[in-house]
Amino acid sequence: MPTPATPYLVVDVDRLRRNVRRAADRAAVTGTALRPHAKTHKSPEIARLQLASGAVGLTVATLGEAELFARQGCTDLFLAYPVWVDERCAERLTELARVTTLAIGVDSVEGAARAGRSVGGTGIEVLVEVDSGHHRTGCPPERAGEVGAVARRAGLEVRGAFTFPGHAYARGGAIAAADGESRALAVAAEALRAAGVEPRVLSGGSTPSLELADTDVVTELRPGVYAVGDAQQWELGAMDPGDLALTCRATVVSHAGGRAVLDAGSKVLGADRAAYATGYGRLLAEPGARIVSLSEHHAVVDLAGAPLPPLGSQVDVVPNHSCAAVNLVDRLWVRGTGGPGGAGSAAGPTWWPVAARGLNG
Amino acid sequence: MPTPATPYLVVDVDRLRRNVRRAADRAAVTGTALRPHAKTHKSPEIARLQLASGAVGLTVATLGEAELFARQGCTDLFLAYPVWVDERCAERLTELARVTTLAIGVDSVEGAARAGRSVGGTGIEVLVEVDSGHHRTGCPPERAGEVGAVARRAGLEVRGAFTFPGHAYARGGAIAAADGESRALAVAAEALRAAGVEPRVLSGGSTPSLELADTDVVTELRPGVYAVGDAQQWELGAMDPGDLALTCRATVVSHAGGRAVLDAGSKVLGADRAAYATGYGRLLAEPGARIVSLSEHHAVVDLAGAPLPPLGSQVDVVPNHSCAAVNLVDRLWVRGTGGPGGAGSAAGPTWWPVAARGLNG
Repeated sequence: MPTPATPYLVVDVDRLRRNVRRAADRAAVTGTALRPHAKTHKSPEIARLQLASGAVGLTVATLGEAELFARQGCTDLFLAYPVWVDERCAERLTELARVTTLAIGVDSVEGAARAGRSVGGTGIEVLVEVDSGHHRTGCPPERAGEVGAVARRAGLEVRGAFTFPGHAYARGGAIAAADGESRALAVAAEALRAAGVEPRVLSGGSTPSLELADTDVVTELRPGVYAVGDAQQWELGAMDPGDLALTCRATVVSHAGGRAVLDAGSKVLGADRAAYATGYGRLLAEPGARIVSLSEHHAVVDLAGAPLPPLGSQVDVVPNHSCAAVNLVDRLWVRGTGGPGGAGSAAGPTWWPVAARGLNG
Repeated sequence: MPTPATPYLVVDVDRLRRNVRRAADRAAVTGTALRPHAKTHKSPEIARLQLASGAVGLTVATLGEAELFARQGCTDLFLAYPVWVDERCAERLTELARVTTLAIGVDSVEGAARAGRSVGGTGIEVLVEVDSGHHRTGCPPERAGEVGAVARRAGLEVRGAFTFPGHAYARGGAIAAADGESRALAVAAEALRAAGVEPRVLSGGSTPSLELADTDVVTELRPGVYAVGDAQQWELGAMDPGDLALTCRATVVSHAGGRAVLDAGSKVLGADRAAYATGYGRLLAEPGARIVSLSEHHAVVDLAGAPLPPLGSQVDVVPNHSCAAVNLVDRLWVRGTGGPGGAGSAAGPTWWPVAARGLNG
């Protein structure tokens, strides 16, 4: 592999394959559909790996991502977002539904009525988003029937309900989040049935709560970060450092103040720092080290007593949030063979395009 | 102007021109050179505006940015960073120095010696970075002479010293930062002279401390954000809301929980939230409103009592940190005429490319 100038992101393909396989096996054992969230990697190569491992389709966050992955050959997409279907959006959705099975989210009576008026009859299905405790979007679970009934009356097939148990992103939060997910989806299912709509899919899932999901209720899981991991998962205890597959190669450019300052800043790592995070990123080889301050092109590292790496030496940084880091680069450099002829081998590519980078709209 | 799908970034060209003109006029009055930092906008169009207003050249943060702006015709670039000149970097710097006047930063004896061995004799000049209180990179000001002397012995012309008074980014921090900047550069100048190096340039500047810079000492200013502003400058009192020229157009997609949820998340606004920030971004038209939680594609807004904007309506969000937001998009949409035939007029372009986006290395 030719080495680009630092800082650059690297995917360890062997770890990636292991993570993808593990989640696929677990889904198979529990009889749950796996629909990985492609916003994490935005990469057709990783999507193909997930689909080849038995994923039923992909989850996406934006219409632009949906269009990109459809062009790349994915034939089953769920836009897990309360889409406000304006005129231009309706045209794009209709176009997309010609080439792929497509579902979108709705979380209000108004949103459902509008979606029905705009794309009813095109074969596009909807899932009602319900709030399971994360308090971002989603209607109260007991109102899912009302929203679903409006969607159906407006000409849309209602596939079921979905939620994002994002409150799993807190220290010790995963158990309560998985419990909230199960209860919210069960209540939503009852509400849909009471309104005459039989849900076929009850969709949940987040990486930190993945193994705790109540598969007696949840029929589909949509984790994203599980494929590559990040420092958040490490800190939450949701992934072991040996499974982290995304790192940023960085150079030590300064010893100012007796500390290591790296050339990887927020413009390649992202500036995400959750309340529970102990820094702005970590070093893969030094579990005690923390990035204690971060600007656009500088990361100041507290090495927690480990020896100061020499000026000009390189280290592997684990970004806090892989979804944010990946969206900052055009290429993921590949490490590991991934098997004979696979990515990173002599015959394979040395980088994968982040083809959906920046597709926010 | 055709309207793209939300979320997208918009530059108000009239405000931009006014901001650029005001800083240029002030620099002219005080006899200070203005060398705007192009990392904020990464846009050749905005760089040309700055250069046409009398800027002596551009500041950049990475070699990739330097190469891009040189290709765009800029002939005087300062890479204000402690560059670690490895072999490939030396080749690129040497190539670049053939087409533009070029200076780089060094902040250590080792860095200076290495730069000298690698690019000494190419015409590339160096400025010694000194720490004026921000404690990121930069040697202590009193050691500038030692670093400068090593650089000169290694065959590099020493242009002077520079600092970034980044501690101006704190509530009420600008006065102390400008004072630190002045003292550090004065001490660095003395140290350089004592080592037999006469500094021609003493370079400082940040947007919040810009008007406080001690122009009896500081000969050059390198502000970046001043051109377009952001919520940080608004909150620090460094810029009036009427001067903010960069906003993100966003759609209200949900009223979950009785709040407005927008489709502009951290993947278009950036996740920056300084300790002094009162939220993850603000609304231009509602000074009391704050983005109180932010995920990749959702911004939850506390409207502070203002009426809930209807589902499907659009609002203008002021990102916390414009440098981060601009680096997430490929285009800046243009609003305002900027004069006859200018950008945004019937005859002018409707968007400008963020040509240096993602050029971290």
